[in-house]
Amino acid sequence: MERVAIIGTSMTQFGNRSAWIRELLAEAGHSCLASAGVDPNALDHLYVSNMAAGEFEGQTGVSNALAHDLGALPAYTERVDQTSASGGAGIYAAWRSIASGASDMTLLVGGEKMTHRSTSEATDVIASLTHPVEYKHGLTLPSFAGLTARRYLDRYEAPRESLASVAAKNHRNGVDNPKAQFQKAVSKETILESPIVADPLRLYDFCPITDGSAALLFCPESVAREYTDEYVVVAGVDGATDTHVVHERPDPTWMGAVAESARGAFDMSGYGPDDVDVAELHDMFTILELLQLEALGFADRGTAWQLAEEGYTARDGGELPVNTSGGLKSKGHPLGASGVAQAVEVYEQLLGDAGPRQVSADVGLCCNVGGFGNCVTTSILEVGA
Amino acid sequence: MERVAIIGTSMTQFGNRSAWIRELLAEAGHSCLASAGVDPNALDHLYVSNMAAGEFEGQTGVSNALAHDLGALPAYTERVDQTSASGGAGIYAAWRSIASGASDMTLLVGGEKMTHRSTSEATDVIASLTHPVEYKHGLTLPSFAGLTARRYLDRYEAPRESLASVAAKNHRNGVDNPKAQFQKAVSKETILESPIVADPLRLYDFCPITDGSAALLFCPESVAREYTDEYVVVAGVDGATDTHVVHERPDPTWMGAVAESARGAFDMSGYGPDDVDVAELHDMFTILELLQLEALGFADRGTAWQLAEEGYTARDGGELPVNTSGGLKSKGHPLGASGVAQAVEVYEQLLGDAGPRQVSADVGLCCNVGGFGNCVTTSILEVGA
Repeated sequence: MERVAIIGTSMTQFGNRSAWIRELLAEAGHSCLASAGVDPNALDHLYVSNMAAGEFEGQTGVSNALAHDLGALPAYTERVDQTSASGGAGIYAAWRSIASGASDMTLLVGGEKMTHRSTSEATDVIASLTHPVEYKHGLTLPSFAGLTARRYLDRYEAPRESLASVAAKNHRNGVDNPKAQFQKAVSKETILESPIVADPLRLYDFCPITDGSAALLFCPESVAREYTDEYVVVAGVDGATDTHVVHERPDPTWMGAVAESARGAFDMSGYGPDDVDVAELHDMFTILELLQLEALGFADRGTAWQLAEEGYTARDGGELPVNTSGGLKSKGHPLGASGVAQAVEVYEQLLGDAGPRQVSADVGLCCNVGGFGNCVTTSILEVGA
Repeated sequence: MERVAIIGTSMTQFGNRSAWIRELLAEAGHSCLASAGVDPNALDHLYVSNMAAGEFEGQTGVSNALAHDLGALPAYTERVDQTSASGGAGIYAAWRSIASGASDMTLLVGGEKMTHRSTSEATDVIASLTHPVEYKHGLTLPSFAGLTARRYLDRYEAPRESLASVAAKNHRNGVDNPKAQFQKAVSKETILESPIVADPLRLYDFCPITDGSAALLFCPESVAREYTDEYVVVAGVDGATDTHVVHERPDPTWMGAVAESARGAFDMSGYGPDDVDVAELHDMFTILELLQLEALGFADRGTAWQLAEEGYTARDGGELPVNTSGGLKSKGHPLGASGVAQAVEVYEQLLGDAGPRQVSADVGLCCNVGGFGNCVTTSILEVGA
């Protein structure tokens, strides 16, 4: 089987943008093609990771629009939706596109435009992914996060401060990411005194609502060197699904689909958790970073809460730097873009292009989560040889 | 490259259904698995072709919901959207899933729930796929159809009656399809006297608004015989995209993306138009059946209008029976389901399971169109040997 290479990346400014979704997608798409010196006419497949342009903006057909705007016609296009994990699903879709031989040059662009809607409107759109019975009883994603955090802290006798340590770490990393929505350090004290949203979680335990887009360019590894001297390879990728009804899961503190998708991705790559040098995890809520560290095999169950406090996941000197980009927490979370942007960060880390955020890494991992662990894609990237 | 087999199919009743989208998807999914005697646990990938469950019903995450409802966890799931061509895009996605080696058993379920919304609400959701500038000037899909039909009839000196012949043929075919929304023959006179919608097109030139779902089960051909003695193979499949802004196309009577996608699918299969014995085309509007017959290479430009009148595309004795199922015209058009249901009909025709609709066929073609030719997927199916 031909290995799949990533030869270009891009990411727009994340934050409060005045552009519409098709402009954001085109901005990231053009930049990504330019980063690899590839002409739009060379594309034969184009995937758009996007959850809800129809709901947010009344615009559907966004992959058709993007092919037109990029000048990539008549490339085949498709929108890939796996709610907030649409970006990771797009990576898997792009991988299959190349690995099946259907495409020799595939562009993936993920994006979402959200900030023109009120917070409650945006929250309602996101909540439409939950089971209606849970939703009508008030069990939105933030509610699940609060309930699960309470259970985790009680069960493992973890201090409330450990969640704040995750937020503080990711905000500190975001200071050095000029494309992050928030480029500001936030102290643990500020986090612990911020307004309660879903007890025990407070404002700074949650990612913001964000506009933005990110892109990746894929081709067979056998031709990657025609375009670039340095590239990244998708060593492993897999996805998995958990119950739609969250309360049917046997243990709310165990993210089963994260574990399943990681097993598949590790098996394909031949690597294990000990081989990973840098990871971008889906810290939509601080508690999720801890649960992913455990389900991915980076920490024993009930112990991940110690890692941020001990500096294990720190960018400077940590054994496994996590969310060097700032994570969803400070970089922002434009739903369809987030999984793509995770891989943009890992790509830059692997190729030594991460500037002040640079760590030493040969193998990186991305974990993108939809809903409250409902759909998950994990990918493992390494430097192309 | 391993060839991809289809070993099971299903289609729900199309029409005005009281079920919600997740119930329709589950109904088709369960039936399809049962048709092949395959357990839900055997699935590793599950694709849902759906344009707008979020807009129609406020329910997103439908692929997650379906994996849960089928008992297929932890299978990887993804929603595939290419507007009204989502079903055809799903066939291509399922093909790549198997051909890449990512999956050994992939279920595709397409569906849409629309009739609980008013016609104008449903039309607005569909219109959201068009370019906003065209839409604001009144250029909805029916308007494009009217303008294009007028141009076609004038240019090729075709009689208005030729469009009515397409509608009459497809309604006649639908009489023998117990799952069609309309199982009633309609005379050319009735069609020609029905209310004008977009001159010269009248009510019976348009497909209805429909609820329904359809499904296909894919596996590598090398293992197909473990499940069934008779199966179908995807001999060729490809997709292509045309301008998002319809008025930028050089010739409105030529469906460029249909021609591009057909070229790819024919090249892959080794077949040409003369080898095709039966075809399901996207007759959302009668004029589209004619334009597809020409762009697919079944008729010279400007001549397809004669085919229905001469009986060339008739089920009984025609050289190329087209829309034996009744087409979108009488079967109905639940957006995400339509492309999947096309392949369900061709599968039944190839395996001799089409009952009173049966024609003699070894090779069949499906052409699924999004927007007004914006996105197209063409697939060529043949009997597995």
